Amino acid sequence: MTSDFQRADGRDLDQLRTVRITRGFTSNPAGSVLIEYGNTRVMCTASVEHGVPRFKKDSGEGWLTAEYSMLPAATHDRMPRESMRGKVKGRTHEISRLVGRALRAAVDLSQLGENTINIDCDVLQADGGTRTASITGAYVALADAIAVLKSEGVVPGEPLLPPVAAVSVGLVDGHVCLDLPYEEDARAEVDLNVVMTEAGNFVEIQGTGEHGDFSREQLDAMLDSAEKGCRELIAAQRSALGI
Amino acid sequence: MTSDFQRADGRDLDQLRTVRITRGFTSNPAGSVLIEYGNTRVMCTASVEHGVPRFKKDSGEGWLTAEYSMLPAATHDRMPRESMRGKVKGRTHEISRLVGRALRAAVDLSQLGENTINIDCDVLQADGGTRTASITGAYVALADAIAVLKSEGVVPGEPLLPPVAAVSVGLVDGHVCLDLPYEEDARAEVDLNVVMTEAGNFVEIQGTGEHGDFSREQLDAMLDSAEKGCRELIAAQRSALGI
Amino acid sequence: MTSDFQRADGRDLDQLRTVRITRGFTSNPAGSVLIEYGNTRVMCTASVEHGVPRFKKDSGEGWLTAEYSMLPAATHDRMPRESMRGKVKGRTHEISRLVGRALRAAVDLSQLGENTINIDCDVLQADGGTRTASITGAYVALADAIAVLKSEGVVPGEPLLPPVAAVSVGLVDGHVCLDLPYEEDARAEVDLNVVMTEAGNFVEIQGTGEHGDFSREQLDAMLDSAEKGCRELIAAQRSALGI
Amino acid sequence: MTSDFQRADGRDLDQLRTVRITRGFTSNPAGSVLIEYGNTRVMCTASVEHGVPRFKKDSGEGWLTAEYSMLPAATHDRMPRESMRGKVKGRTHEISRLVGRALRAAVDLSQLGENTINIDCDVLQADGGTRTASITGAYVALADAIAVLKSEGVVPGEPLLPPVAAVSVGLVDGHVCLDLPYEEDARAEVDLNVVMTEAGNFVEIQGTGEHGDFSREQLDAMLDSAEKGCRELIAAQRSALGI
Amino acid sequence: MTSDFQRADGRDLDQLRTVRITRGFTSNPAGSVLIEYGNTRVMCTASVEHGVPRFKKDSGEGWLTAEYSMLPAATHDRMPRESMRGKVKGRTHEISRLVGRALRAAVDLSQLGENTINIDCDVLQADGGTRTASITGAYVALADAIAVLKSEGVVPGEPLLPPVAAVSVGLVDGHVCLDLPYEEDARAEVDLNVVMTEAGNFVEIQGTGEHGDFSREQLDAMLDSAEKGCRELIAAQRSALGI
Amino acid sequence: MTSDFQRADGRDLDQLRTVRITRGFTSNPAGSVLIEYGNTRVMCTASVEHGVPRFKKDSGEGWLTAEYSMLPAATHDRMPRESMRGKVKGRTHEISRLVGRALRAAVDLSQLGENTINIDCDVLQADGGTRTASITGAYVALADAIAVLKSEGVVPGEPLLPPVAAVSVGLVDGHVCLDLPYEEDARAEVDLNVVMTEAGNFVEIQGTGEHGDFSREQLDAMLDSAEKGCRELIAAQRSALGI
Repeated sequence: MTSDFQRADGRDLDQLRTVRITRGFTSNPAGSVLIEYGNTRVMCTASVEHGVPRFKKDSGEGWLTAEYSMLPAATHDRMPRESMRGKVKGRTHEISRLVGRALRAAVDLSQLGENTINIDCDVLQADGGTRTASITGAYVALADAIAVLKSEGVVPGEPLLPPVAAVSVGLVDGHVCLDLPYEEDARAEVDLNVVMTEAGNFVEIQGTGEHGDFSREQLDAMLDSAEKGCRELIAAQRSALGI
Repeated sequence: MTSDFQRADGRDLDQLRTVRITRGFTSNPAGSVLIEYGNTRVMCTASVEHGVPRFKKDSGEGWLTAEYSMLPAATHDRMPRESMRGKVKGRTHEISRLVGRALRAAVDLSQLGENTINIDCDVLQADGGTRTASITGAYVALADAIAVLKSEGVVPGEPLLPPVAAVSVGLVDGHVCLDLPYEEDARAEVDLNVVMTEAGNFVEIQGTGEHGDFSREQLDAMLDSAEKGCRELIAAQRSALGI
Repeated sequence: MTSDFQRADGRDLDQLRTVRITRGFTSNPAGSVLIEYGNTRVMCTASVEHGVPRFKKDSGEGWLTAEYSMLPAATHDRMPRESMRGKVKGRTHEISRLVGRALRAAVDLSQLGENTINIDCDVLQADGGTRTASITGAYVALADAIAVLKSEGVVPGEPLLPPVAAVSVGLVDGHVCLDLPYEEDARAEVDLNVVMTEAGNFVEIQGTGEHGDFSREQLDAMLDSAEKGCRELIAAQRSALGI
Repeated sequence: MTSDFQRADGRDLDQLRTVRITRGFTSNPAGSVLIEYGNTRVMCTASVEHGVPRFKKDSGEGWLTAEYSMLPAATHDRMPRESMRGKVKGRTHEISRLVGRALRAAVDLSQLGENTINIDCDVLQADGGTRTASITGAYVALADAIAVLKSEGVVPGEPLLPPVAAVSVGLVDGHVCLDLPYEEDARAEVDLNVVMTEAGNFVEIQGTGEHGDFSREQLDAMLDSAEKGCRELIAAQRSALGI
Repeated sequence: MTSDFQRADGRDLDQLRTVRITRGFTSNPAGSVLIEYGNTRVMCTASVEHGVPRFKKDSGEGWLTAEYSMLPAATHDRMPRESMRGKVKGRTHEISRLVGRALRAAVDLSQLGENTINIDCDVLQADGGTRTASITGAYVALADAIAVLKSEGVVPGEPLLPPVAAVSVGLVDGHVCLDLPYEEDARAEVDLNVVMTEAGNFVEIQGTGEHGDFSREQLDAMLDSAEKGCRELIAAQRSALGI
Repeated sequence: MTSDFQRADGRDLDQLRTVRITRGFTSNPAGSVLIEYGNTRVMCTASVEHGVPRFKKDSGEGWLTAEYSMLPAATHDRMPRESMRGKVKGRTHEISRLVGRALRAAVDLSQLGENTINIDCDVLQADGGTRTASITGAYVALADAIAVLKSEGVVPGEPLLPPVAAVSVGLVDGHVCLDLPYEEDARAEVDLNVVMTEAGNFVEIQGTGEHGDFSREQLDAMLDSAEKGCRELIAAQRSALGI
């Protein structure tokens, strides 16, 4: 933990990569956003469907579900296409479920009417942090989709809750680094993904000692860094949405 | 067939939509292109893998294969994700096979060494003509990937053949229309996809009377229009590649 | 293209193989036909089901769908059974879709009532041209099935349209050859499948330069040959049906 | 159990349906047989592959495997195609395994060399007894395939063992009936399938009280009838093979 | 068949392994039983669901279905988990179907109301005879589940029929041995599974000459032994149930 | 958060349910443990296979992988069997991956030789906390399996690392509750699973605001409670293993 530790891209330890949020990236879905965390690029869309899944029928409430996927050529070495393999990998399932839970924390289903919002996060280019970028971008797409619903008059209330954003933080050579690119992520001792609300509360934390375990103190330091990152990401969401 | 037939977007009957070809759209694959035929947008990548499938082992030749897919939110109404359904639709299979055959006509496998080129065409936004845009864009990605291979010295010869491009043409209300957007495609009596070489020869023609059959004369008129379209598309490919 | 080109089976360039159509090949389906193009033998059946798929519900119209399959021992070397592999090959999907489109051109769905006709084409023995034989044979099975429906009084109108038949034509050593057996098909430079109505119009054309491309002149010569072949096949259909 | 019990097709209680065995039904597989038990028609083929599955590698022995399938239009009401459903039904698996075990009793694997024989039994028309007809027919196809192997000099010994045949017998309205057609099979209280060698020994017996149980005495009576049936079927096999 | 044949575990030829039946093994299903035939241990549960499958709708009758499965670590060498392979093996399907048929012989569906009983037999430890232990144990779970249904007042009549039990018997070195453990099962010439009612009638018999065929006399001797075994198993069922 | 909050089972807020660990639960796998957290019962086995997956070939290191599954009748309402559905649920995948990561933190792969340990966690009865019980139980099975490997002399070094255990903690009506049974888990605002080493470091933490988010202070309180629980669970592991 000498003072001469340097991140490959020259960032400070608690500095985000450049974040870019492009609304209206495609025109068919109600919300369509391209989000970039440095070289990581994810297309996040929010499509609206009338009606809800069976377990929500006649509840008067809406539903939100999410699917995450990597394009085969998104990674450094091309990965086989999951549709051709005939099954979805565990990692994909896991992230889809995470994105769904995170975004449901940003919507008041009781105000949505019996409508379903389908979030799709398709990674065009992967350089670490694809799941966290997906969540942050999907919130913006969700906001746009809800605005469409409201303008169409099909939403009875105000379903959009304040922003939710996500970032990764890790221990790299013993240093707490924010927003890991692939190169750092692959060799990090610990990887922590944090989903946070604007109020500074956690929606989800997932910390994994991939190559080692981590102490309570290290966790605390990582959470501090993540909190700083999420606040900046929420500012970027608000700026993109002009709210 | 009165003279007051008008295309919804105001184009002449034998006019292409605006074509845009963006090279280097993403950075991981050897070739990565965003092609646009009007509102249709397809990300076409060419990834290189050392080695060949079993049926080509020890042949001294390379191989090229292609996969086409639509992102779920590419269409007006979101379509279920094929990886989640656990199987690929017949349409997807059919187009993947078409793209593969078309691109193999643009590469001399005997000059490629025992390398495999994987073409991926992922439709980000669909407005008709996704299969033809895929072919035209994939040629540019292929050219870039082969240039990488050559610069790395792993390709023994000159595998790239002259351009191959593709366009759709159809009978709409009895009129031969070039490069159909979704709105025309959906109501066309006949739909013809043509893949053509720079020399003006056909690599593939697929004509379908979706809502009616077509005479030899109508076929001839459609082929004339397609030929004009392909020539313009090949010019756009050459311009994008600077060759 | 010297004059000493000879087809292995001694046929003229534009001569069909012997065509045999056996009606009532099996007794359970409403229509059941064994069609033979030389050594290619396909069992074509048309089964009738009351009701229509969801997208046709309450339309007052019927539907027709088709499935093509090869028995594992139909080919020279036994092929793995698709049901055991757990997925259908792209080629199978593609041909099933082709057969369905072709046969829908031979039935007026608005006259069928809300009934579904399932066409099954199961190749018992394969020697080239299985998809075209399937279409030609399936028309006869369809005609028989519609006759059953009419005799049962469940069909309101006259759904059967005039015959549709199909044939392959190809360029073999530069010669336009009609109705390719496997040996010619495997080495043909170009393979063109043509589906034609009795009126001489095209329902579908699919031309592929498997080992080379083809000029407009070659296409014209192939279409001439295919037209001759389809006319003879339609005569065989009419003769088999006694209409 | 009054004396006025009559079988719908007028047969005696212990009388087989007419058995027809057509060798050389198709030409690609080494053995190809159409077997008919009345209206039940099954195409049975035996294809030879050099090499054996992994668990038999370097054993010096061969292997035999079998697959049974119904064409979708074989039954009175069309059944969905298993390849399209993406999975094979339990019944199909069960019969494939039965056919494999039965035929392995008719071949001396130690005399086969490291070759694999694939038996395919595809039911063209079903009217009860399809699994037993499959076994009886497959023996004849197996004999033909082994003759081919011997003529090619690739089989070191004499792998063919004496005939194995199979028949169903059941209790219908309390009467022991041999070789049940569909109509009897569907309402039989008990259904017993028997696979027997020429020496009169059992290879397999499977008795099921579908709609009731059965006593030891009833079992004995059914076995007597099955034995008579199998002897006649073996005579038919020998007659077809001219041995 | 000399008199010095000894079973590895010292049992008499017609002696069962120790049978243990533990009711209430788990608490969520209506019936839950652990059955042990020596070292073979199967958890058998009977779960009740209101409603019936489509083919039984509005029949006024209930339904019973069964699934059998081996835990991956149940066998000496761990076997791949079927859920991960994405398909169920033929053997599993076959046994599930057998268990279902056997148990349906122990329930009067017309007295069950429109309820479905799901039998699950999960093998915790396998040492031969898992399918027969499953049947014997599942009867006890079924009895408990029906008692629950009756106590809840949802069953109109008395659906439980007298006990059904099952045992394997085989020819090992020419000797008829009852209740084969894995070591005997693997080398048995013949394997016969018998499902019997308390009245001494057969519900199902399945005899297979895995490594040889078997004569009528050998079958008779095996059935005698199996009958003795089933009577003792039914006594154990009655004792466990206290009826 | 009034002082009259009571847990349904009367436990203190930071009290574990009764933990029982039964070694040698089944005899075929090298390690086999039944672990109980109150009414939650999981069979955890560790099976050893010689050799490693491809990505570890010739590394000189071993591998450990894990699969988690629920028996269909483990839950209050029976759940469909995943092998029959043909695909594994996202939740199952997610937990299997978690268990694998957690257990790899308890084994020094470099000391294992090129052997693979397969952990199977099959839930016999579910009452909350099945994933955490799986991890805690699997450590004991792993220890037993490694002892077997060492006694067989196939393990070069000392692969077993100090214990790893896991527990859930949640916010229920605003109270931090340790080791949630199903009833509490279903209504908890927040659910946190913690995997900890004997040294008190984290291997994994997964916190989810299912019905609400959580503050940093609440997280700290939950981590305190989880740490207490893990220490007690590790004592139980040591006691069971007698180490």
